[in-house]
Amino acid sequence: MANATQIIAEKGKQEVFIIREFDAKRELVFKAHADPDLLGQWIGPDNRIVKIDHYDSRTGGSYRYFVCNQMGKPVAAFNGVIHEVTFPERIMQTFEFEGLPERGHVSLDTMLFETLPGERTKLPIHAVYRSLSDRDGMMQSGVEKGVNEGYAKLDSLLKKME
Amino acid sequence: MANATQIIAEKGKQEVFIIREFDAKRELVFKAHADPDLLGQWIGPDNRIVKIDHYDSRTGGSYRYFVCNQMGKPVAAFNGVIHEVTFPERIMQTFEFEGLPERGHVSLDTMLFETLPGERTKLPIHAVYRSLSDRDGMMQSGVEKGVNEGYAKLDSLLKKME
Repeated sequence: MANATQIIAEKGKQEVFIIREFDAKRELVFKAHADPDLLGQWIGPDNRIVKIDHYDSRTGGSYRYFVCNQMGKPVAAFNGVIHEVTFPERIMQTFEFEGLPERGHVSLDTMLFETLPGERTKLPIHAVYRSLSDRDGMMQSGVEKGVNEGYAKLDSLLKKME
Repeated sequence: MANATQIIAEKGKQEVFIIREFDAKRELVFKAHADPDLLGQWIGPDNRIVKIDHYDSRTGGSYRYFVCNQMGKPVAAFNGVIHEVTFPERIMQTFEFEGLPERGHVSLDTMLFETLPGERTKLPIHAVYRSLSDRDGMMQSGVEKGVNEGYAKLDSLLKKME
């Protein structure tokens, strides 16, 4: 039975929790998030190719990446700044989808890499939004499909890394 | 009559609004926030000296500064990353007080510089916190005194800049 993703968006709150377990040590799960070459191999939905523009994975760094169609043409871009990278425990960064009519719909995302028994890892992501409507807009954008398909690719990548 | 600061922290919401008007053009008010030499002259309460460690005021930049006593000894430190700097409209950045028992109590702050008639400026700051308790902790830390005393110094600095 595959590890299921929990997505919790409580009514009236400007935040989301995304919780997933992985059958790999947290150092590996962390590395697959913090190493741009690895990140580009799994993040995003199945029918898309991710091209990392830059991912300076350190406290005080920044990132930008493009989500492209099968022809390699960018269909979306995301960027943010990296508030904290503490190996192998925590990454905190801002996150913005560039395709909206106006800029500024930014979230502050915290990923915790927690050790579970049996060399497994729990990864709760907490995202807080500037408004309830920003949060709801993100939830309606198909985030669930992208997250689930991305994590399935991450499962395969982690097996290869071990 | 001096411009009064409004601080709005609605019950149960993980956000704060701080709204202040200034008798100066928004380009000047913006500059007093984005230029580290100017920022260090007004930010913080009356009985403190601010020393800027670095303030790389650009999209993708980062900052850190120390609040020191009259002897120049640091009593507090703050840091963050800068998601967006759009002159003379908007600054978005993360904000963390380093003196807490654990790291990670970070807010995402948005400052809007809005033109008012008569070459005046309205500056609404919106801060969103990772939790209600983070928000309430910040509110109980004496933020109101620091903000009011800092803005009084900023009023004087803006007069000199004009």
